[in-house]
Amino acid sequence: MSVSIDQQIGESKKAIDGFLDQYLKNQIHRAEKLDPSYSELWKSIYKLFDSGGKRFRPIMSLLSYQALGGNHASQIISTVSSQELLHLSLLIHDDIIDRDYIRYGVKNISGQYQDKYKKYLSHESEILHYSNSAAILAGDLLISSSYQLLLQDANDNHIKQLVSVFDDAIFYVAGGELIDTESAFIIDNKSLIINELKTAHYSFVAPLIIGAILADSSDEIKKLIIQLGILVGTAYQLVDDSLGIFGDDKLTGKSTSSDVSEGKRTFMIEQFYKLASKDQITKFDKLFGKANISTAELEEIRSLLIDSGAHKSNLEKINNLKSQAEEIIKQIPIEDSSKNIFYELVKLTLNRIK
Amino acid sequence: MSVSIDQQIGESKKAIDGFLDQYLKNQIHRAEKLDPSYSELWKSIYKLFDSGGKRFRPIMSLLSYQALGGNHASQIISTVSSQELLHLSLLIHDDIIDRDYIRYGVKNISGQYQDKYKKYLSHESEILHYSNSAAILAGDLLISSSYQLLLQDANDNHIKQLVSVFDDAIFYVAGGELIDTESAFIIDNKSLIINELKTAHYSFVAPLIIGAILADSSDEIKKLIIQLGILVGTAYQLVDDSLGIFGDDKLTGKSTSSDVSEGKRTFMIEQFYKLASKDQITKFDKLFGKANISTAELEEIRSLLIDSGAHKSNLEKINNLKSQAEEIIKQIPIEDSSKNIFYELVKLTLNRIK
Repeated sequence: MSVSIDQQIGESKKAIDGFLDQYLKNQIHRAEKLDPSYSELWKSIYKLFDSGGKRFRPIMSLLSYQALGGNHASQIISTVSSQELLHLSLLIHDDIIDRDYIRYGVKNISGQYQDKYKKYLSHESEILHYSNSAAILAGDLLISSSYQLLLQDANDNHIKQLVSVFDDAIFYVAGGELIDTESAFIIDNKSLIINELKTAHYSFVAPLIIGAILADSSDEIKKLIIQLGILVGTAYQLVDDSLGIFGDDKLTGKSTSSDVSEGKRTFMIEQFYKLASKDQITKFDKLFGKANISTAELEEIRSLLIDSGAHKSNLEKINNLKSQAEEIIKQIPIEDSSKNIFYELVKLTLNRIK
Repeated sequence: MSVSIDQQIGESKKAIDGFLDQYLKNQIHRAEKLDPSYSELWKSIYKLFDSGGKRFRPIMSLLSYQALGGNHASQIISTVSSQELLHLSLLIHDDIIDRDYIRYGVKNISGQYQDKYKKYLSHESEILHYSNSAAILAGDLLISSSYQLLLQDANDNHIKQLVSVFDDAIFYVAGGELIDTESAFIIDNKSLIINELKTAHYSFVAPLIIGAILADSSDEIKKLIIQLGILVGTAYQLVDDSLGIFGDDKLTGKSTSSDVSEGKRTFMIEQFYKLASKDQITKFDKLFGKANISTAELEEIRSLLIDSGAHKSNLEKINNLKSQAEEIIKQIPIEDSSKNIFYELVKLTLNRIK
């Protein structure tokens, strides 16, 4: 089974990559005809797309579709691939908000434009402002492109359901991003609702339910699929939070110091404040949220999270959500061999190191 | 005729306002159920929506639809109103890029969030960063909402055409905004292509062609409508550029100093550099692009634009585009009484003072 799903994922990724590669090249060409400066924006998007991304959401839709009995996978590549552009648009805008300029190990849109604009502008703040402006526009373009691809080849009877999924996904993720951003300075222990809104809906519920819509699943199945998405998605974010501090930069492609420097109030951090001693909290507060944190300081943060039990508590929560997700899968009225696809998905999602 | 079109516009505006008012209130309610902080973002959007906007784009679609024989206007309110949310999203993001915090005489999203966040943050730059972040998210949400409304009540046979119009509109406007923004520091005399991309497509071509699609017009008519939109839209922007410097702040609701302070390279400014004497250019360059420009300095800018002939040249270009637009209207194969709607539209668009 494990070999089979890996093969399936590999083939899906190839089809999705090929499709999006061509779409973005066409956009570069389309922009080039209007103005060379404009095509540079699309080239910067292409570069980002081409440098990384696991295409996890489109792949998840394809797996969900196949597990639920869909057997025209080649006809839904554009529809499922739309999610990757939505994802890219959200990453581009999130990076502006998080003041990150590296993504997938390369410069993101703002980062690439800083290099371009520093030839024309001298003040650091002006370079940053205009580079972020280009990145705002790049994200806007990709939101629009994602809707375009979502509907391009969709059947008439799926269109309104698909639009509603995207509308929900963006409604939730932007809400989650807002509360998440505010959590850096408005302390309110909202990590789990943030995870549900920011990650679970657009990264799990949407991909899984898009598969179900395209496979014409029953309402009963769709309801279970939504619950599954919320559970796995919330757990995924807890894994991600952990990797954000305990992961390997080189594998994740994201700096392990940025969450700490931003003072992100993850579930693990909330648990720390519940479980830690006064002394541990005093030490922690001196470092957490500090800009330009050193390797030694990051190591101290890690020790405090482990010693207090916060790290363990995060792991327990992940395992608890995982068990609930497996219970839901049991209830989906499909063949056991199809259920295995969902079990594998849960494993792949939660046992990751990057 | 003039009374009739005014009445028609008044009734259309009422229907569009009523529809969007209810939509945005529902979104506030929907966000409130997730988190109170999130509903505040939708409230800030509602406040901006409620403070101004002529709903010109949806109205233009309705007029185009009716002129082209459509007679179920009440059934297309959601579809045409979608453009107002797209417009609002673009204004919100443009204001971040232009560093404007007032719109329709009230604080825009970033402006409203500055008031909120200054209770939690002390550094001016942090307040600004996080307020702009909220505004980025607000714009993203409205792009998504606009697609949702565009398709919500659309007939299956119109959906793919409508999506393609929106995709084009956003593709052009973002390109125009990019080149426009860059024109502040990369001097390249691109004002007319900027006008076509930034204004003509999404503000004129899209509204007019959406009316034509919904009225099931022929391809011949659609082609003429697109040409009409480009001509009127480009002319509209030239009027807007003029109002940006010569207009009355109180009527336009936008500061007349911001275009000057930003050093926007409009067609009028390009003409100035072609027509002005060395002495005039020296004087102009001292003031143009200067932050915090005084009333006297703004008056000097105005005199230089008039004395050099740049202002007149701009007016001549407007009149030339207007004549071409009227030629196109002549060619549209519809009754003269219907053509009058388009002639009135051209007049209303170009004879404005705000």
